Amino acid sequence: MTADIEEQPAGYARLLSAAHTGPIAEVAQVIARRRPRHVVFTARGTSDHAALYAAYLTEIRLGVPAGLASPSTVTVFGARPDLSDALVVGVSQSGGSPDLVEVLRVARESGALTLAVTNAPSSPLAAAAELSVDIAAGHERAVAATKTYTAELLALLLLVEGVRAGDGTLPAAEREALAALPDLAARTLADPTPAQLAARYRFAARLVTTGRGYAYPTAREAALKLMETSYLPALAFSGADLLHGPLAMTDPDVPVLAVVGSGPGGRSMREVLPRLGERRADVVVVGSADVDGATRMAVPEVDERYAPLLDILPLQRLALALALARGEDPDAPRGLKKVTATM
Amino acid sequence: MTADIEEQPAGYARLLSAAHTGPIAEVAQVIARRRPRHVVFTARGTSDHAALYAAYLTEIRLGVPAGLASPSTVTVFGARPDLSDALVVGVSQSGGSPDLVEVLRVARESGALTLAVTNAPSSPLAAAAELSVDIAAGHERAVAATKTYTAELLALLLLVEGVRAGDGTLPAAEREALAALPDLAARTLADPTPAQLAARYRFAARLVTTGRGYAYPTAREAALKLMETSYLPALAFSGADLLHGPLAMTDPDVPVLAVVGSGPGGRSMREVLPRLGERRADVVVVGSADVDGATRMAVPEVDERYAPLLDILPLQRLALALALARGEDPDAPRGLKKVTATM
Repeated sequence: MTADIEEQPAGYARLLSAAHTGPIAEVAQVIARRRPRHVVFTARGTSDHAALYAAYLTEIRLGVPAGLASPSTVTVFGARPDLSDALVVGVSQSGGSPDLVEVLRVARESGALTLAVTNAPSSPLAAAAELSVDIAAGHERAVAATKTYTAELLALLLLVEGVRAGDGTLPAAEREALAALPDLAARTLADPTPAQLAARYRFAARLVTTGRGYAYPTAREAALKLMETSYLPALAFSGADLLHGPLAMTDPDVPVLAVVGSGPGGRSMREVLPRLGERRADVVVVGSADVDGATRMAVPEVDERYAPLLDILPLQRLALALALARGEDPDAPRGLKKVTATM
Repeated sequence: MTADIEEQPAGYARLLSAAHTGPIAEVAQVIARRRPRHVVFTARGTSDHAALYAAYLTEIRLGVPAGLASPSTVTVFGARPDLSDALVVGVSQSGGSPDLVEVLRVARESGALTLAVTNAPSSPLAAAAELSVDIAAGHERAVAATKTYTAELLALLLLVEGVRAGDGTLPAAEREALAALPDLAARTLADPTPAQLAARYRFAARLVTTGRGYAYPTAREAALKLMETSYLPALAFSGADLLHGPLAMTDPDVPVLAVVGSGPGGRSMREVLPRLGERRADVVVVGSADVDGATRMAVPEVDERYAPLLDILPLQRLALALALARGEDPDAPRGLKKVTATM
């Protein structure tokens, strides 16, 4: 898991090379030409969080409605939604989940434009879809996904921005900003804070993660990573939903990891933090926002769209360090397999 | 909270009377005539679970793609998705959340057909939407929503089945089956099992809920109710997602509430239960399925579409009984308000 985590800057650099941006631009061009009226993402586990990020990007950057579909309506209940106006995107590290393959097959039959985003270009999912994007993350050794998650994020970002550009070619300013990501990721990974923070959560019985907008998928993925490796029940809430009920649960015994960046999503979290303060929750802030008096895992400031590519890194390292601190083996989580076959 | 819970059979009977089915049928007729290409639901907290149920119904019963939108793309990031082919549905007990009002206003401007489903027909949400459905649940006293949740479920069911019928008039068999619901709900509420089960969870540090398809919103709502009233961290997973990671977390110390009915969703949970058994989780089954050897909160058997209207009842009672057993006041949860204003 350490090796997978450390490979992420190199993974960004690889995916940003012409060998990979070229094919993604071609896919983006096809999508831009077909002008889908809405986008449906389908994924499970970690990839579901990458899909959620892409849904935010699609709505905000393309002005196209986007949502996440539950495969079970198709695979369990036999629903055959008319998706002829839609782009249906399956996101999966292995490309091997039979339920996602079935959803893409049915969508394609109903006339949808279909796309597989996977780390396995010759997988059944890639074969089922009309279009395919290779996230090129290389073999992932650990069961808990880390480098494939961030590669999915970056591939989906390149794709959405390529569709926005129309011909798949990103504006020069965007290309420049993206080119800085590998170095920023390496710098983020060099920060010793996550390993130090692991001690803070050594005896935690539970944990809450929260974020809004682009930061919400980060909060959810962090919670999943903590659950998978440390068996720590971690509840993820959007900052807005947290105020609707689960807030009652936060008290001085409940540590909260709040993902707070510098853009509009981060600013909107500032109505949430004082409420957590009233409840005397133990808040640690992750991200580029400098929140008064809060313990922080700092991350370099970037456009809020790019922040999920950096913010998750200290959280992955925290999950790993905490697992080790608690005497667990993060490379062999109890009861988990790398590819999960559900229908 | 007890009074709110006990009123649910009467609430079903009221909503099923001609005074309420008539106006819902009229709204259904308008929607059927406008033939939206996809449906976007927007809601928060408990209402989000009712919206999720309606999204399953829309895909399975109408063959129309449906998804849940995050208000923040519009309210925080200024997204202006083109929703001219869409029906956009805001679900809210109070009809007072400024973010949902804003989402419906923006959607209506972009040409969407808009609908508010609320317990407050003169609320800002109802005013913002072109169409409005009154769930007619009466004043809810407790902060934790119970009777307004089930009224939202039934109103959305009547609406979707009305759209399916085309002219809003449900087939006779459907009307008959629905007419049995108030009695079935009263019978479900008379079961003493939930109060007895509260003792089982008196010292639980956390809990997992799970279900698939129509039962997944029930699992999520049960988790939220347990969190709101007993401050018990409760993690809800679809049965399929549970196998993708969080399964590692379940061990003999973790109680699992599995919602398992008799239809396809319930049958698909049968691949999940043995996996939980391997991990020696403490499983209690809620629903109509008779699972070998499992402790059960039994619920009368109905079509799987209707099961969410009954399955949640023992879970609400469990949340209430557990809060009392733990010395909490479920009528005054810490740090919560009835109407939450987020933008």
